[in-house]
Amino acid sequence: MTKIQAAIVGASGYSGEELVRLLLRHPNCELKIITSRQHDGQHIEEVFPRFAGHNLKFSAPDVKRIAAECDVAFLALPHGLAAEFAKPLVEAGVVAIDISADFRIKNTAKYKEYYKTDHPAPDMLARAVYGLPERYRKQIAQADLIACPGCYPTSSILPTAPLLAAKLALPEDIIISSMSGVTGAGRKVDLAYLFPECNESLRAYAPVKHRHLPEIEQELAAAAGMPEVAINFVPHLVPVNRGINSTIFLKVAPGCTLDKITAAYHDAYAAEPFVRVLAPGKQADTKYVIMTNVCEISYTLDEHTGRVIATSAIDNLTKGASGQAVQCMNIRFGNCETDGLL
Amino acid sequence: MTKIQAAIVGASGYSGEELVRLLLRHPNCELKIITSRQHDGQHIEEVFPRFAGHNLKFSAPDVKRIAAECDVAFLALPHGLAAEFAKPLVEAGVVAIDISADFRIKNTAKYKEYYKTDHPAPDMLARAVYGLPERYRKQIAQADLIACPGCYPTSSILPTAPLLAAKLALPEDIIISSMSGVTGAGRKVDLAYLFPECNESLRAYAPVKHRHLPEIEQELAAAAGMPEVAINFVPHLVPVNRGINSTIFLKVAPGCTLDKITAAYHDAYAAEPFVRVLAPGKQADTKYVIMTNVCEISYTLDEHTGRVIATSAIDNLTKGASGQAVQCMNIRFGNCETDGLL
Amino acid sequence: MTKIQAAIVGASGYSGEELVRLLLRHPNCELKIITSRQHDGQHIEEVFPRFAGHNLKFSAPDVKRIAAECDVAFLALPHGLAAEFAKPLVEAGVVAIDISADFRIKNTAKYKEYYKTDHPAPDMLARAVYGLPERYRKQIAQADLIACPGCYPTSSILPTAPLLAAKLALPEDIIISSMSGVTGAGRKVDLAYLFPECNESLRAYAPVKHRHLPEIEQELAAAAGMPEVAINFVPHLVPVNRGINSTIFLKVAPGCTLDKITAAYHDAYAAEPFVRVLAPGKQADTKYVIMTNVCEISYTLDEHTGRVIATSAIDNLTKGASGQAVQCMNIRFGNCETDGLL
Amino acid sequence: MTKIQAAIVGASGYSGEELVRLLLRHPNCELKIITSRQHDGQHIEEVFPRFAGHNLKFSAPDVKRIAAECDVAFLALPHGLAAEFAKPLVEAGVVAIDISADFRIKNTAKYKEYYKTDHPAPDMLARAVYGLPERYRKQIAQADLIACPGCYPTSSILPTAPLLAAKLALPEDIIISSMSGVTGAGRKVDLAYLFPECNESLRAYAPVKHRHLPEIEQELAAAAGMPEVAINFVPHLVPVNRGINSTIFLKVAPGCTLDKITAAYHDAYAAEPFVRVLAPGKQADTKYVIMTNVCEISYTLDEHTGRVIATSAIDNLTKGASGQAVQCMNIRFGNCETDGLL
Repeated sequence: MTKIQAAIVGASGYSGEELVRLLLRHPNCELKIITSRQHDGQHIEEVFPRFAGHNLKFSAPDVKRIAAECDVAFLALPHGLAAEFAKPLVEAGVVAIDISADFRIKNTAKYKEYYKTDHPAPDMLARAVYGLPERYRKQIAQADLIACPGCYPTSSILPTAPLLAAKLALPEDIIISSMSGVTGAGRKVDLAYLFPECNESLRAYAPVKHRHLPEIEQELAAAAGMPEVAINFVPHLVPVNRGINSTIFLKVAPGCTLDKITAAYHDAYAAEPFVRVLAPGKQADTKYVIMTNVCEISYTLDEHTGRVIATSAIDNLTKGASGQAVQCMNIRFGNCETDGLL
Repeated sequence: MTKIQAAIVGASGYSGEELVRLLLRHPNCELKIITSRQHDGQHIEEVFPRFAGHNLKFSAPDVKRIAAECDVAFLALPHGLAAEFAKPLVEAGVVAIDISADFRIKNTAKYKEYYKTDHPAPDMLARAVYGLPERYRKQIAQADLIACPGCYPTSSILPTAPLLAAKLALPEDIIISSMSGVTGAGRKVDLAYLFPECNESLRAYAPVKHRHLPEIEQELAAAAGMPEVAINFVPHLVPVNRGINSTIFLKVAPGCTLDKITAAYHDAYAAEPFVRVLAPGKQADTKYVIMTNVCEISYTLDEHTGRVIATSAIDNLTKGASGQAVQCMNIRFGNCETDGLL
Repeated sequence: MTKIQAAIVGASGYSGEELVRLLLRHPNCELKIITSRQHDGQHIEEVFPRFAGHNLKFSAPDVKRIAAECDVAFLALPHGLAAEFAKPLVEAGVVAIDISADFRIKNTAKYKEYYKTDHPAPDMLARAVYGLPERYRKQIAQADLIACPGCYPTSSILPTAPLLAAKLALPEDIIISSMSGVTGAGRKVDLAYLFPECNESLRAYAPVKHRHLPEIEQELAAAAGMPEVAINFVPHLVPVNRGINSTIFLKVAPGCTLDKITAAYHDAYAAEPFVRVLAPGKQADTKYVIMTNVCEISYTLDEHTGRVIATSAIDNLTKGASGQAVQCMNIRFGNCETDGLL
Repeated sequence: MTKIQAAIVGASGYSGEELVRLLLRHPNCELKIITSRQHDGQHIEEVFPRFAGHNLKFSAPDVKRIAAECDVAFLALPHGLAAEFAKPLVEAGVVAIDISADFRIKNTAKYKEYYKTDHPAPDMLARAVYGLPERYRKQIAQADLIACPGCYPTSSILPTAPLLAAKLALPEDIIISSMSGVTGAGRKVDLAYLFPECNESLRAYAPVKHRHLPEIEQELAAAAGMPEVAINFVPHLVPVNRGINSTIFLKVAPGCTLDKITAAYHDAYAAEPFVRVLAPGKQADTKYVIMTNVCEISYTLDEHTGRVIATSAIDNLTKGASGQAVQCMNIRFGNCETDGLL
């Protein structure tokens, strides 16, 4: 069997680095091209010393070359820029797996509201599939443009969607409080992300209108079978490298019991290779999922307030970005879904 | 002026250590007695090397000696045990400032429900004042038994009470998501608190029925003028030494505006020496309050869900325990309230 | 090809956990037995939630069963105890790969001096091979008892031995200053290793007579072709989970130049899959080797003092313990040496 | 008594922030002026939220105004720039306490070798006193220009000088291995100091020719009564906010015993308010000195190599910079030396 030939467009950030790490270990995929304008011509080891010994050089992005040599291109680019590459790549027959925000949000007005710019390729939106395998596996298997979810949305949708879909929780009253490690901010050279500014610091940011909110609302509305939901989502920056922990507060629907919740999770995830629903009484912990593609989910029913508290833990760079992208590639190209991810 | 003579009963934990640190720097207080059964006879520097040079030895707790030599006794003991000392000390004329849970909860049934034991001194409860100066300053000034709030309650009540008192938020729908540093667990030798088990780990714990919940509910009910409220409170353990960040989600009452919220905070805290309400758009950050007695508060109004999001940051060992206890002592003994705390 | 059948004796510590992680991913090895007296009967996920989904249970150690079912047994036990298992296992035909200290030190008097007990199986010492592939690959390929080096020795010997062997540095004047993450202390429930006692703390420990010292001295004497060397080795505990960085100060021999040093490292390691010698001017960094089996080495010649400063970085649990053990297994059983380790 | 009127020139870095913190608490000093070109006109709370409530604004530096209003100016500026301010300030009668490197090194050729520029004010060097009170207290009391030591030199000289001065250790063979927290790099927005680049990372840097080396060599030569010494000094960057731990390896002189070492330290430091020499067997730990002006020193004699191993711990921003500067101010202006520092 010939290996899938892959390119990473924009490989010099933390998600790009994680994609490189995963693809270099992948049994059925060959990483052919890694691009970076800034590092054009540099050996990968100059940017990421951990990859010394691998024969890979950064080059400037070149759609024609990617189309000629690759089956799949991962786009680890800023939003806006990703769409510029996605369109010609897809048109040239390359499967594009985008880990930017460009094709996640179906509503272009929402995109503009949150990203402060017109959508760069609205004609491509209809072709884009939301790259969350646990919700859209069949569509991913057929897609030429896969829009991988954001890290917070992955951590929010996985524990919440099954309860909304099963009508065990009310969609009107959803509150999500998340904590993220600092790689979530990207490899951005900014005072706020210096070690002494983050270490021994706990702080919320963007408590309203975080850019991941419309994506969470879109997907949870879909799960609930409603046109729209309005959600509170507050992210916090905490001093770890990797990991997101999201705690979700849901008002129970009439008739909801702990057994029904357990059953809903079992139905949704018993067969999923990368979702681990914990036994009652245990709590999801990022340290058990770091450097893996797993999402841990824990849950409790609080009788005295009538709320379910669900908690999830993922690695923001793996299940929250690059691992999920590889999972999507596996699905799309007929690999075993766990290839390169265990 | 003669200095206040002080004892710390149970001085070998993190709160005890912080009390020692604060009292040794206090201009109007002399730390005479520090007790610890475990370390009886040891010089303080053997347990806490930072206090080398101070002439203090641990002794076994001795109520008679404390009563003879001291004006005030800080109780930094496990719940249950604190009450055993509080009673004879108060009866002997010593002001007891308790940082355990024993006298925080007025309802003995709630105490039993959450602490799994009968209240050890119910007859003392009526004399106990809740040691949150921003809410009970006048009572503290007269009290002989001061029950200092827990760390999570301090971080929860300060940002929430003014909005409930001003009828700007609904008491029926309060959700609190908190993060705490590991000193919050005490100096407890337990696998769960080893460095490699906490570092690079984000996890919720006790998502229902945390022991600080009844205290939060009691005080927020009082602020709202209601007999009872039911609240969701979920604490998370995160890898910092000190600090609590609490994010509180409140449903706005009809007529609530951002200006009214601002005014309510201003009325409550403009004159408070240890509460810092941030300008809109800024977020409370534990790194700005660590090793201080300050509580930072930030807030946002989310129009699309009709919720206020208030966030607080405190040092769990200072404003969340020992600093607040010293603030109470200052009030009770007529010192300047900030003595020893700047 | 049938897979190597493996047991881990004493699998409940951090090294045991790392062995489980590596063997579960290994293409040519099947992990059959994991033992722990404390956790006898428990599913592995109860102790290590990350391994949920794998069908493995702890059992009490049983030499007969291991001999009947396994080709290789990894001993992740305290010193003293390891020898008790090594002897019957080897005699029953099982290859024993010991990551304790029991068979590292050839001199039983030294063992007694540093471990305060008579050697538990002196008759086995002659059969034991020191499990550092870069120095003893051929012997490992034949050995039935492999004594994997300690973490500090691995980080010390790899950068130092080639310079001593090439007579570029003097064996009389070797100083090693190391830093280790807290997993290096094992999964030991002790006040000194609580998160708040380690976080924001930098401290030396055991500055003389650390238990890894005789092992370093033995191997560096061998490299230098001398009966004995006396070395200063000072370890420091620093707040990371994984990783050792060792800085080694060596007095240059007459005629030593930077080029000769570079050549010596090239000769020693150019063909090694797990040693990465950095270009001059770069410094070894644990973050580039964590969760890998790689040892990074950097070096500088300080003309004004006549010393070489060599620095190494390893993951203490991987190249410093369990990864190296798997590397030894690969060599011993004729696998590709990197199987399961990339 | 009127308070000392103080200015901080260049108050927007970490050392400047620490100076502000210390001076705002100082009983005999009033902080009148804080300068920053970048933040000219901003309230201090906009840059350092922790100082909210203090009525201080950044202004552009103005020598005339400082001379008119202040008795002392702390220079927390980059090297080169500090000298430009020191000269006119001193000439205008202001005591200048410089925490840059400009006046530490007496030899202008060394300055040029290490700082790659001609010394900016060589005529001032003769007036400058090295601001290490434990070595130069009398001179500091008279000085108009005080050159506070670097953080690494403070941590290196204090444990080493007494042994050299007492001829207990040989000056020819001194090796210093240090670890520093990330505030040591300043508040510099650089990829290398991002949280994810520092957290879970241990690395050496500048293993030869670090800029603090000539200062250490100058002062240890002086202690040994020699014209010059050549020393190995290797700093390491480790993931803590504050703190330096230095381990120093010294070859003992003939006749040196542990008792003589103990006596030498006792003679040097028994009366020092900010040096804490630990009992044998204990090890200096940065966590016991963070946020204090204390230097902890521990020591061991290694008979088998004939070396003393001395270890020190300081807070790099306090005893390593701003606290020491305040200590010098106290000495220079006749305050109690510990004012504002306990």
